[in-house]
Amino acid sequence: MTISLDAMGGDHGPDAVVPAAIRVLRRRDDIQLILVGDQQILADRLRSVSRNDFGDRLEVRHTSQVVEMDEPPSHALRTKKDSSMRVSIDLVKQGVADACVSAGNTGALMATARYVLKTLPGIDRPAILTALPSIEGRTLVLDLGANVDSSAEHLFQFAVMGSVLAKAVDGIESPRVGLLNIGEEEIKGNDQVKQAAHLLTNCPLNYIGFVEGDNIYTGGVDVVVCDGFIGNVALKSSEGVARMIGHFMRQEFTRNVFTKIAGLVALPVLKAFKRRIDPRRYNGASLLGLRGIVIKSHGGADALAFANAIEVAALEVRKAVPEHINRQLEDLLTHRKAI
Amino acid sequence: MTISLDAMGGDHGPDAVVPAAIRVLRRRDDIQLILVGDQQILADRLRSVSRNDFGDRLEVRHTSQVVEMDEPPSHALRTKKDSSMRVSIDLVKQGVADACVSAGNTGALMATARYVLKTLPGIDRPAILTALPSIEGRTLVLDLGANVDSSAEHLFQFAVMGSVLAKAVDGIESPRVGLLNIGEEEIKGNDQVKQAAHLLTNCPLNYIGFVEGDNIYTGGVDVVVCDGFIGNVALKSSEGVARMIGHFMRQEFTRNVFTKIAGLVALPVLKAFKRRIDPRRYNGASLLGLRGIVIKSHGGADALAFANAIEVAALEVRKAVPEHINRQLEDLLTHRKAI
Repeated sequence: MTISLDAMGGDHGPDAVVPAAIRVLRRRDDIQLILVGDQQILADRLRSVSRNDFGDRLEVRHTSQVVEMDEPPSHALRTKKDSSMRVSIDLVKQGVADACVSAGNTGALMATARYVLKTLPGIDRPAILTALPSIEGRTLVLDLGANVDSSAEHLFQFAVMGSVLAKAVDGIESPRVGLLNIGEEEIKGNDQVKQAAHLLTNCPLNYIGFVEGDNIYTGGVDVVVCDGFIGNVALKSSEGVARMIGHFMRQEFTRNVFTKIAGLVALPVLKAFKRRIDPRRYNGASLLGLRGIVIKSHGGADALAFANAIEVAALEVRKAVPEHINRQLEDLLTHRKAI
Repeated sequence: MTISLDAMGGDHGPDAVVPAAIRVLRRRDDIQLILVGDQQILADRLRSVSRNDFGDRLEVRHTSQVVEMDEPPSHALRTKKDSSMRVSIDLVKQGVADACVSAGNTGALMATARYVLKTLPGIDRPAILTALPSIEGRTLVLDLGANVDSSAEHLFQFAVMGSVLAKAVDGIESPRVGLLNIGEEEIKGNDQVKQAAHLLTNCPLNYIGFVEGDNIYTGGVDVVVCDGFIGNVALKSSEGVARMIGHFMRQEFTRNVFTKIAGLVALPVLKAFKRRIDPRRYNGASLLGLRGIVIKSHGGADALAFANAIEVAALEVRKAVPEHINRQLEDLLTHRKAI
């Protein structure tokens, strides 16, 4: 399979993308990569790589433009037709690449992918999905910021897409789908959530009802569905707590000579623990609902994190995710007509 | 000052509330407490306390009803006029108590408090505020679930109340107020958030603009304002992450005999760390915007946690929080008329 990489996107651009590409090519011989970006800069970053290392498994596609991280999506869409981001997506459209990965501006990536690839029939707007760690394994959460003020119908579409991904990629036969809500009685959620619950109750998905924010991490659910505003806040809050906990832990272990010794003794355990919740291992969010595979890497991703996003793309190619979503949507529409 | 306690509310009822009351009475001699609940049950839990221990600083007020944790608020309001929750609030209304604390059903507490005490002029709906730990100290967050689909005007009122509390209770001269939003460009938030930003920009509060979920814990802001649905999800997600991190850490330290020894060596440090993020230390959310002080304890609170909620109530009494909110609202309304 072939994956195109927006080599200029993200905070670190080619400094993260090129080493990530090399890492993946060394590890897997079933993947071909196209680095899309400034030829000269990429040639410089590829100095250490000999032509013979990967043969035709590594290709560079020159582009003259870069989408800035704070550039308005509409501006990028209109004026950056030779950007590394746009061309990476064009390659998927043209069938040259099977998927693309970008760490660039999320809004621009979403707008460009939607414009170039179009959405699947039955999908109004693509959604952003990511896997988050949980006590039980992992939980898929969507939407994470592509859509605000999602309607009940949109939440329903997110549920379908999340369920398909959990089945196709995680191999879960009948993924448990939960609708994110608040735990207060009588004021249970807003109208959209209540209506979405109704739609989900009357469909063949394994809908398990309302879940709360903590269930993302404590388990009992495979797919958590929510509006993009809410999903984004949940994700960012979680990142904040994890960072604060790390900060306090470092403070406690460096308080004095005794705590420092304790820290040294506990170091291997603390490292194993840190590896386990390393957010880089969860890098690579899927833009779902498109006629093609687009993976968004965290803007601040380093080589290890970006390599993980490439692996996510490879997995979705192998599992033919868009085709599965398409088929599931067709089935559900037939089911709806039948009842 | 006198504080009434809903002794039957919460998962543990009098088993948590009575020891919490004793703990507070031992620690502080400026507080009088009224335990509201079933006389016989309370007498039983108070066996170890001699009449002379606290003199008239501890009183029992008998009630015959209990609001169930899953009871609809409207039902509780209509049929539970002699419940421990209702009478605790009635005592505040009558001026017998200066504040009340309950670990009972949030929806019922909110509805009853609003019905009995009424809101302050200029406040449409009360909000729930809590303090959360941050790297810098603490951050006040509201609303946490009392209101869904908050309008821009509601968000503005939350900002005023949060700012007053930060000034009165935390002693911050000019509290930094941030509006919770998502970080995506061009799709920055929903209409309510955009309009609330406009209202806040044109008022004398120290409004610092949009903040993201992680800022709650990493600092840079004193008061974070959001819709109740969003605040509730942020809070619950954070709790989930913290629980997952604790789970993984225990797993790593109990993996084998070596990691167990490392855990023993690091135990004092791990304990100090745990104390620091102990959620019980942050127990006690304020129902703000009422003509009286009502503090909501976590339903699962133990004695230590409930005692903390009593301390929160005492602090708000001492700082005359409702009067401060009232005055600030009057000033802002005058300011609005002037421009």
